[in-house]
Amino acid sequence: MSVEAPEKSRKISFLDRKESGVLHFVKYHGLGNDFILVDNRNSLEPSVTPEQAVKLCDRNFGIGADGVIFAMPGVNGTDYSMRIFNSDGSEPEMCGNGVRCFARYVADLENLTGTRSFTIHTGAGLIVPEIQEDGKVKVNMGRPVLTAADIPTKLPETKNGAVVQANLAVDGISWKVTCVSMGNPHCVTFGNERSEGLQVDDLKLAEIGPKFEHHQMFPSRTNTEFVEVISRTHLKMRVWERGAGATLACGTGACALVVAAVLEGRIERSCTVDLPGGPLEIEWREDDNLVYMTGPAEVVFYGSIPI
Amino acid sequence: MSVEAPEKSRKISFLDRKESGVLHFVKYHGLGNDFILVDNRNSLEPSVTPEQAVKLCDRNFGIGADGVIFAMPGVNGTDYSMRIFNSDGSEPEMCGNGVRCFARYVADLENLTGTRSFTIHTGAGLIVPEIQEDGKVKVNMGRPVLTAADIPTKLPETKNGAVVQANLAVDGISWKVTCVSMGNPHCVTFGNERSEGLQVDDLKLAEIGPKFEHHQMFPSRTNTEFVEVISRTHLKMRVWERGAGATLACGTGACALVVAAVLEGRIERSCTVDLPGGPLEIEWREDDNLVYMTGPAEVVFYGSIPI
Repeated sequence: MSVEAPEKSRKISFLDRKESGVLHFVKYHGLGNDFILVDNRNSLEPSVTPEQAVKLCDRNFGIGADGVIFAMPGVNGTDYSMRIFNSDGSEPEMCGNGVRCFARYVADLENLTGTRSFTIHTGAGLIVPEIQEDGKVKVNMGRPVLTAADIPTKLPETKNGAVVQANLAVDGISWKVTCVSMGNPHCVTFGNERSEGLQVDDLKLAEIGPKFEHHQMFPSRTNTEFVEVISRTHLKMRVWERGAGATLACGTGACALVVAAVLEGRIERSCTVDLPGGPLEIEWREDDNLVYMTGPAEVVFYGSIPI
Repeated sequence: MSVEAPEKSRKISFLDRKESGVLHFVKYHGLGNDFILVDNRNSLEPSVTPEQAVKLCDRNFGIGADGVIFAMPGVNGTDYSMRIFNSDGSEPEMCGNGVRCFARYVADLENLTGTRSFTIHTGAGLIVPEIQEDGKVKVNMGRPVLTAADIPTKLPETKNGAVVQANLAVDGISWKVTCVSMGNPHCVTFGNERSEGLQVDDLKLAEIGPKFEHHQMFPSRTNTEFVEVISRTHLKMRVWERGAGATLACGTGACALVVAAVLEGRIERSCTVDLPGGPLEIEWREDDNLVYMTGPAEVVFYGSIPI
């Protein structure tokens, strides 16, 4: 049996496929939140259906990812449009970790280097991610919503129209929680009546997380962040995401807990947050009330799949 | 901002990478048991270390797989050698689902079509998979071991030197179990004192599985198959794998339960087994006592990753 050079045979394998039935993609991750990026710059119609996205995201039978992101032509004068299909086929308005991957992917497609920013049309409106010199991407995550009815939570507003250090009973223990919406509801806690400061590594998240998520005080359920204060510019968190459970990274959660920590007087307005998947830099600006998130987005691999 | 054709930009992305720091691979799966196949035909030294394999198998930060399989030059007159690194960096002797993927991968590399068989040197000795006309792959899985001491189990031999329909108490319920080794220990059950025939979809596998795995009757722990008899040529199973928990497919498990079902007089020697990941055809031959497994192996995608 003849043995060909590996490089040659690989190319044959690639080229033998009918190009029309092949999807080319690049897999990226932002703190372990991973996406299949698809070059869809020739059409505003996604080249993959939601049903196909579900299959592509399957971690055993498909590529495996948390979602498929399409880089599309801009509309209304923007450089690009971004759409996302989640691994369950649903379509979210936006995703903080996803938009960082989108920015890096577009720069790679266009062979752009150095600092760059793009205007991107998303379901949540205009987003302008900035690629920094170090390759990290800064994204404006919008303004926090603090009124109880809009978060929503049935907990009482305790400080300047915000739910700050309110008492929440879970399993007979009183937790101190601050509630913030970043477009989705977050319940942030730094401790309870038994321990004022949490050691987040010791938490039994799978036990306790669902009890927060489904607590009657949160009519739309809630994401919950358990936070340890390392210093006035450094927090560490673990997150229980609504509908997703314990995850490696939740961008809106990192933003929410910095807002909560500022409201509780624990930290400066600019802070590093250690998530299980890695660190994010979060800044809640005083002048315009906007929250900025800066973090990595990395190529994992390049691929082609028959569809 | 200029917009290039998608095809052109993709090629630039691919070719810009330094080839020396790139691993080309193909992802395959056999019933959802998925592997990264690497063309290693130029060397008997794997091009990836066990530590790198762990990273490549990570489902968020890497490619995501159950293992990395290397197609290597043959030794002692065989066509090829196969080695596998598991997702935890360990190296198994062999893997039934993996060897089917290996056969299809080698045929693809060599541009071979139609029915084919190869001689493959593995840690478990010579394996000769046969690619059939329909693309499925038949593998000789060896002879079952039935003696209690060699499985190993402390349960008594009840029939012709085999542990057949022995009583095993789990949580105060007496289960009827038949024990078989296919190189690894299997405990096969079709029912208990409460229900003679199992409805495997209704089982609480995560609750009950570990109690079999760690039962004192199994000094090396055990894989456990819960089996529903559909007909004399059709079984349905769910598996709790030793060290891995509920999995989509366990090739040796499918073999073990056909042996067990024949020993219990429930089926013919040739049978379809429905696993959660899909069906396998299993035949336990009377003349030479060998077990043959026939099943699919499918390309998922082609990829390149910086390493």
